[in-house]
Amino acid sequence: MNALAASPSASASVSEDRLWQLLMDVAAYGATAKGGVNRQALSAEDTAAKKHVVRWAAERGFTTFQDDIGNLFVRRDGTEPTLAPVMTGSHLDSQPTGGRFDGAYGVLAGLEVLDALNDSGTQTRRPVEVVAWTNEEGSRYSPGAFGSSIFAGIAELASVLDTTDSAGAMLRDELAKSLAETGVPIRPQGSVRPHSYIEAHIEQGPVLEDKGLQIGVVTSIQGIHHLDVVIVGEEAHAGTTPRRSRKDALSSAVAIIAALELMTSDEDDVTRFTVGRCEVQPGSPNTVPGRVHFTIDLRHPDRAVLTSLVDRVRLVATEKAGPCSVTVTDNLTVDPTIFKAEVMTAIRQSAQALGLGHMDMPSGAGHDAMHLATLCPAGMIFIPCLGGVSHNEAESATPADLAAGARVLADTLVRLANS
Amino acid sequence: MNALAASPSASASVSEDRLWQLLMDVAAYGATAKGGVNRQALSAEDTAAKKHVVRWAAERGFTTFQDDIGNLFVRRDGTEPTLAPVMTGSHLDSQPTGGRFDGAYGVLAGLEVLDALNDSGTQTRRPVEVVAWTNEEGSRYSPGAFGSSIFAGIAELASVLDTTDSAGAMLRDELAKSLAETGVPIRPQGSVRPHSYIEAHIEQGPVLEDKGLQIGVVTSIQGIHHLDVVIVGEEAHAGTTPRRSRKDALSSAVAIIAALELMTSDEDDVTRFTVGRCEVQPGSPNTVPGRVHFTIDLRHPDRAVLTSLVDRVRLVATEKAGPCSVTVTDNLTVDPTIFKAEVMTAIRQSAQALGLGHMDMPSGAGHDAMHLATLCPAGMIFIPCLGGVSHNEAESATPADLAAGARVLADTLVRLANS
Repeated sequence: MNALAASPSASASVSEDRLWQLLMDVAAYGATAKGGVNRQALSAEDTAAKKHVVRWAAERGFTTFQDDIGNLFVRRDGTEPTLAPVMTGSHLDSQPTGGRFDGAYGVLAGLEVLDALNDSGTQTRRPVEVVAWTNEEGSRYSPGAFGSSIFAGIAELASVLDTTDSAGAMLRDELAKSLAETGVPIRPQGSVRPHSYIEAHIEQGPVLEDKGLQIGVVTSIQGIHHLDVVIVGEEAHAGTTPRRSRKDALSSAVAIIAALELMTSDEDDVTRFTVGRCEVQPGSPNTVPGRVHFTIDLRHPDRAVLTSLVDRVRLVATEKAGPCSVTVTDNLTVDPTIFKAEVMTAIRQSAQALGLGHMDMPSGAGHDAMHLATLCPAGMIFIPCLGGVSHNEAESATPADLAAGARVLADTLVRLANS
Repeated sequence: MNALAASPSASASVSEDRLWQLLMDVAAYGATAKGGVNRQALSAEDTAAKKHVVRWAAERGFTTFQDDIGNLFVRRDGTEPTLAPVMTGSHLDSQPTGGRFDGAYGVLAGLEVLDALNDSGTQTRRPVEVVAWTNEEGSRYSPGAFGSSIFAGIAELASVLDTTDSAGAMLRDELAKSLAETGVPIRPQGSVRPHSYIEAHIEQGPVLEDKGLQIGVVTSIQGIHHLDVVIVGEEAHAGTTPRRSRKDALSSAVAIIAALELMTSDEDDVTRFTVGRCEVQPGSPNTVPGRVHFTIDLRHPDRAVLTSLVDRVRLVATEKAGPCSVTVTDNLTVDPTIFKAEVMTAIRQSAQALGLGHMDMPSGAGHDAMHLATLCPAGMIFIPCLGGVSHNEAESATPADLAAGARVLADTLVRLANS
């Protein structure tokens, strides 16, 4: 892939105001009182956001498709429409108490680039497609990022259809409803293999803000391992059961989590260990808990270190379970992703050409780009977010930084689409 | 109160089979697949159990009343009907995964005694009333035992009406529905002050079974302190947020609970410390928890020790909160109850007269009798339960032990009702 000289007018036609307005329009779907969004995968709000994108595309005469897992594509044809498209995008679903920019920015920056290509009269050889991947977050249906994973042929559709959310709603049903509501033609899985993929995203960490830079050229994504831990003890009366005869599942969970925190506390603070969900049953103040289920999210950029950490989690959980029994189940493994040098070069050249301060950096979070990277050359563009805060209703980013990222995206997409 | 000689025929007329049948009939309301009951306060199942009692009373010509908090009374008149009644009873509500005997036994043993009084043609001077107190368990509406607490004039009805359950159902509405469904006349609060109160209950601990005795003469109920602990941190992305910049509410909760367990671990295993409910928000596997709420159930027979433990809980919670903020709120305080010597004597004499093995013992659990003890001489009769297991669907007791307790209850009630 030789990056051709890009038309400077495409990036110059990116409108800070128009992008901000589009971000705010879409933030209305699932808007929370605290200024964030609750737009979980395949919810009515998520589908409404997708329909907004479909209407946006129709107004401009772009073609839209979806696939059988609900990934939504907006296509702007190239001068050689049979060539593999350059893709860009991210996701529209959010955490239950999520922010307005995580995911949505990558999709809507892509749409802003399509507007900028039109406004500047830019023709590209290859088609450019903007995609909204289904269920990146994984908060409603686990595991996350299965929209892009199924598109990349890593997971099979059938393997997720029977998943239920915490209210018992089956993915199969919610997906069918969303596909019908969105109402655009289905494009078969495997019928399109992208030429390349670029994803714009807020950093979700504090580095760019700390260094006063607008653009992060993402070099890699750390590996992720998700585990489910179930501890079974025995329910008993809180007033009558002496400590020594209890099998208190929460007490064992506390001992296990405390030991795991100690075990994962590395001096250089690279390992990420999080217990994000913890459910205690029966959950009555005066009953000794008989069952606890908690999740572990474990991340490290080095595959070997991550594997060894997972082994040690199993050991520690068994050692610290006390009188209870414990089961540790693998839920998701994502190997670290190393992005292709040529894509990083294209992004770096665009940032340089636009005179924007930039740096190479790894991604702490998983993204759909990790699955696309198994299919084609892929890369990511980061922009700063306020205080590095994300997965939080207070998540914020400035119109200027959002537009800077969209300009780098426009320039990079044109380079790749003309290569 | 001088205990008169009791009619031996009342206790002899207690039927083991009839009592067992009544217990099994009522266990059908809210029956669970695992052989327990889920009959939480003021639920449809709880009201159905109360209506069963109303039908039972109507078939025998006994008068029934309820009061404005839904406590249900079945009255058998005495030869001097204007005298204060002797009361016996317990509660029909259960834990969400509760057993068939906790509470229900005390109410239904009382009804069996009324049948036995009829069958033996026993006349008592004082009326005998069997009562089912509303919401002893406190699992659906907190605090527990507010039916007896309002009857005893300790709590006010108005103070609980706005309580909501975890699904948002208001007590005011659920109570109104239950009162209307039960459909018996309302007797005003304060219009009846019992002469004395005896409550039969399964022990909910292992002592009687271990010692091979059928009757426990309860001397006291340990004091209870319920606390709510709320920890507020900051939601953040599990992949991008370094450990040192996290404000992880669950991590702080784990540190606090571990320290509290250590602090309350007394060598003689008398202190009861339980965290029964722990809610983690937002509860997404890849989001650092921003808020944790957990409950503490703390018990000790010595009031001074209990008070000092509560003070130390506050200190430890503050010390171990790390980067998060913590709030500890009092939810319920119940002082230890010391039962009246004359009531214990009456129970002891009855057990002796019936040739049943008995012992004096404290109660580890709170019971409605603790509120009644502020109003009149009160006491309790314990019988063994299998393995000491309670607040558990596996809770069990033998027909023979259940009948033995009912016989002591019959004999004691006659003694008291003729005094």
